[in-house]
Amino acid sequence: MVTFVARDPRTGDPLGEFVETTPDAVSATAVAAAEAFAQTRHQPNRARVAWLSAIADAFDGAGADLLAAADAETALGPARLTGEWARTRAQVRLFAALVADGSYLETAFDGADPDAVPPRGDLRRMLVPIGPVANFAASNFPFAFSVPGGDTIAALAAGCPVIVKAHPSHPETSRRCAALIAGALAAAGAPDAMFAMIEGAGVAVGAALVMAPEITAVAFTGSRRGGRALYDLAATREIPIPVYAEMGSVNPVFVTAAALAARGDAIADGFAASMLNGTGQFCTSPGVLVVPVGDAGDGLVARVSSAVASAPPGYMLNATIRDGLEDQVAHTKRLSGVVDAADGERASDDGFGVGAVVLATDAETFITTPALRDEHFGPVAVVVRCDPVDMPAVARSIPGSLTGTIHAEADEAGGSAVTDLRDALIERVGRLVWNGFPTGVAIAPSMHHGGPYPATTLSGFTSVGQASVRRFLRPVTFQDVPQSALPPELRS
Amino acid sequence: MVTFVARDPRTGDPLGEFVETTPDAVSATAVAAAEAFAQTRHQPNRARVAWLSAIADAFDGAGADLLAAADAETALGPARLTGEWARTRAQVRLFAALVADGSYLETAFDGADPDAVPPRGDLRRMLVPIGPVANFAASNFPFAFSVPGGDTIAALAAGCPVIVKAHPSHPETSRRCAALIAGALAAAGAPDAMFAMIEGAGVAVGAALVMAPEITAVAFTGSRRGGRALYDLAATREIPIPVYAEMGSVNPVFVTAAALAARGDAIADGFAASMLNGTGQFCTSPGVLVVPVGDAGDGLVARVSSAVASAPPGYMLNATIRDGLEDQVAHTKRLSGVVDAADGERASDDGFGVGAVVLATDAETFITTPALRDEHFGPVAVVVRCDPVDMPAVARSIPGSLTGTIHAEADEAGGSAVTDLRDALIERVGRLVWNGFPTGVAIAPSMHHGGPYPATTLSGFTSVGQASVRRFLRPVTFQDVPQSALPPELRS
Repeated sequence: MVTFVARDPRTGDPLGEFVETTPDAVSATAVAAAEAFAQTRHQPNRARVAWLSAIADAFDGAGADLLAAADAETALGPARLTGEWARTRAQVRLFAALVADGSYLETAFDGADPDAVPPRGDLRRMLVPIGPVANFAASNFPFAFSVPGGDTIAALAAGCPVIVKAHPSHPETSRRCAALIAGALAAAGAPDAMFAMIEGAGVAVGAALVMAPEITAVAFTGSRRGGRALYDLAATREIPIPVYAEMGSVNPVFVTAAALAARGDAIADGFAASMLNGTGQFCTSPGVLVVPVGDAGDGLVARVSSAVASAPPGYMLNATIRDGLEDQVAHTKRLSGVVDAADGERASDDGFGVGAVVLATDAETFITTPALRDEHFGPVAVVVRCDPVDMPAVARSIPGSLTGTIHAEADEAGGSAVTDLRDALIERVGRLVWNGFPTGVAIAPSMHHGGPYPATTLSGFTSVGQASVRRFLRPVTFQDVPQSALPPELRS
Repeated sequence: MVTFVARDPRTGDPLGEFVETTPDAVSATAVAAAEAFAQTRHQPNRARVAWLSAIADAFDGAGADLLAAADAETALGPARLTGEWARTRAQVRLFAALVADGSYLETAFDGADPDAVPPRGDLRRMLVPIGPVANFAASNFPFAFSVPGGDTIAALAAGCPVIVKAHPSHPETSRRCAALIAGALAAAGAPDAMFAMIEGAGVAVGAALVMAPEITAVAFTGSRRGGRALYDLAATREIPIPVYAEMGSVNPVFVTAAALAARGDAIADGFAASMLNGTGQFCTSPGVLVVPVGDAGDGLVARVSSAVASAPPGYMLNATIRDGLEDQVAHTKRLSGVVDAADGERASDDGFGVGAVVLATDAETFITTPALRDEHFGPVAVVVRCDPVDMPAVARSIPGSLTGTIHAEADEAGGSAVTDLRDALIERVGRLVWNGFPTGVAIAPSMHHGGPYPATTLSGFTSVGQASVRRFLRPVTFQDVPQSALPPELRS
């Protein structure tokens, strides 16, 4: 029996010991998921609307003890967790509405045309669910990107059974959420195995899940190393499957000289708040700030540095993440051309505390030093002092990123300098934010939470918003099929 | 200098010696493609409409010598090649219309809503091109799935430069088509490197292309072995990229007892024509025929066998494919429970001739013998004699397939037996054909030419029809971006 321990990030104290799922149990869970899929895959959509509505009701009925458990395991604080839980609940109802609406099926119709080149029968296309989905929960969102989060709900909305590998940093929260989901599905008449949770702190559990023949897709939110390992493993399967890994990014923020002159202080305050939010543990946390050289830019950097230096100490989600960040920051600080501009307070207790950090460099150093462009997962920002004409080149040096942000004034928005910068960012990111900050990802049909590698492994897909169901669907075309044999969605 | 020789399939005689592209030249081609992409990626769509229209015009102006070259290199015959060329030309105009229309950009809009949970800015999403595409041409379609084919045109329509690895069985045809494309693009003002062709008969050229850092996606049409090798290779890249491999399938055809009674002869004749079409060298060639046990089924098998036994001898595209098929068929014939029902004439000359083959077995043998469910690429069919109640189980034993076909009568279409069979096929295929045959793939928005592995590596995508552009696009969301800085497609 293999066990693991969850710890309170504020104290380092153990919160409980948990038993890892065995590889045999993982296999059995995957087999059961395939059986549940066989039972449900051809059912009409309305069954799934009922399932999702039941889950949303169960979430709405959860007590304050759930948030207390999440706070004890993550140290993210009640305000953040209350907001995250509200988002998670809202998400379920949005996906129930999506399934009821049916537009996500991407139905398409072409009448027969024997004179077309080449000739065409009556063609009707819709999407169908692909099969059991493995979902690897994130450390940094115990609700929104974990057991009850977007990937679980999107998979169920698509009609796919889902097996969640819970994150070992918040097992109690995960178990409580899993119980809510399982209870709601059972009450709504879904097969038990439409949802399952497995647990473990080592790699064996997750590897067994990815390699289970019944699994047809993998969703992952976490580190680049973890996501890439799953991607590489899945590629060795007899039947390869897509791995939709969202692995975070540096989320650069660019400030034009005009924006700096008009509202430098507000930008500095907004940036500091965004980078410190959740102790910087967001995939959309801004990790790079590109600021014009000169006095005004100096002022902005000084203000961000001051905010960081005076920020209350924060806690990372677990010791591994904290230790990894501190090692990485120590290495980055030693790089040639990098100045340590601010160091925030670090808690002196036995918890997983870190101090926020601002590092400063110049555009040439940034462009020629790959380590400066790696994500520092946590409250760390690299400020790049830059001649504005070099901003597009700085943008193009950034690895694929979930977001990129431009602060610019209205009268320069259509000009060539800002257009060049915008174009450079479009090349590197999945979401372009204007005069705002990247943290805070809305749930909407037009949201894209993705980006070129290493932000994700498959840049064509989003892991937030209604379009995220597309990861778990595949098209089927019906050619000359009579009305009585067509799925209801494709009848005339 | 490495060279290769193309041969006339009808005689085995050499048609010419061709020089392989060197790995260094492949690298330079990829770098040039990335430069062309940098020049063009932010251009408005109308530029690409002009490029595609110029290509269509160039194709329309091609002389009879192009078809003669293709016939000499493939032995597919003038009628088939004339049809394939017409399809290829029509395809270019359909994609030009698609780009002009703009709906393929999947634009989506959500107004700002500060009261949403979570709050939402003004969000607008569209698709953008991903970058240079590597396209591996097929042996069996010198036009439609080769240099001038769907993958080339879809990539250009998406705005991506394309580098085609020509198939070494038809180099002269490929060179002529490449010249038409290059000339048209130059005349229409596109950078030269938006299109390039590389050549080679060994694996080195293709491997160099897949591993070139500038390549952002791979399209492939060919064998399972070839597609999987590219998939595995791409997974080892520092930056992994999607490999859209379409690797053919067995395309099962099921006949109900009622359909057999009503029109068994017509089904037999249609099946034989479909399986012999192009000497069986279609990815949609029907390779499995599932027929009820009993006298009527015996009659259908006898009629198919008779048609095959009396079919004129055909030629395979090259010696490797021919030899591989003959080895595979010899192995399949020796399997326990398999009867050799018909052997067509095999040309006795020095060309790459094969005889068509019909093999018969029972449902249990079929379900328990994986080799019977592997594609035999060529004019080979496995007839499965089956109690109708076992047809869904036979369908579920089939590996992922591009198509599945049901022949059934109108009054049984909504009944449980046919519904069970339909559902089983939906689980395994990308296109369900009713009372028809799978060869002949229309080009339409609702076409899906794909399917679960091993039909393709990524079952969510089609390689035929307008939706095939989606393989070469990724979403970008614009958040609170002012009108003047939005791409034209996203302005209010």
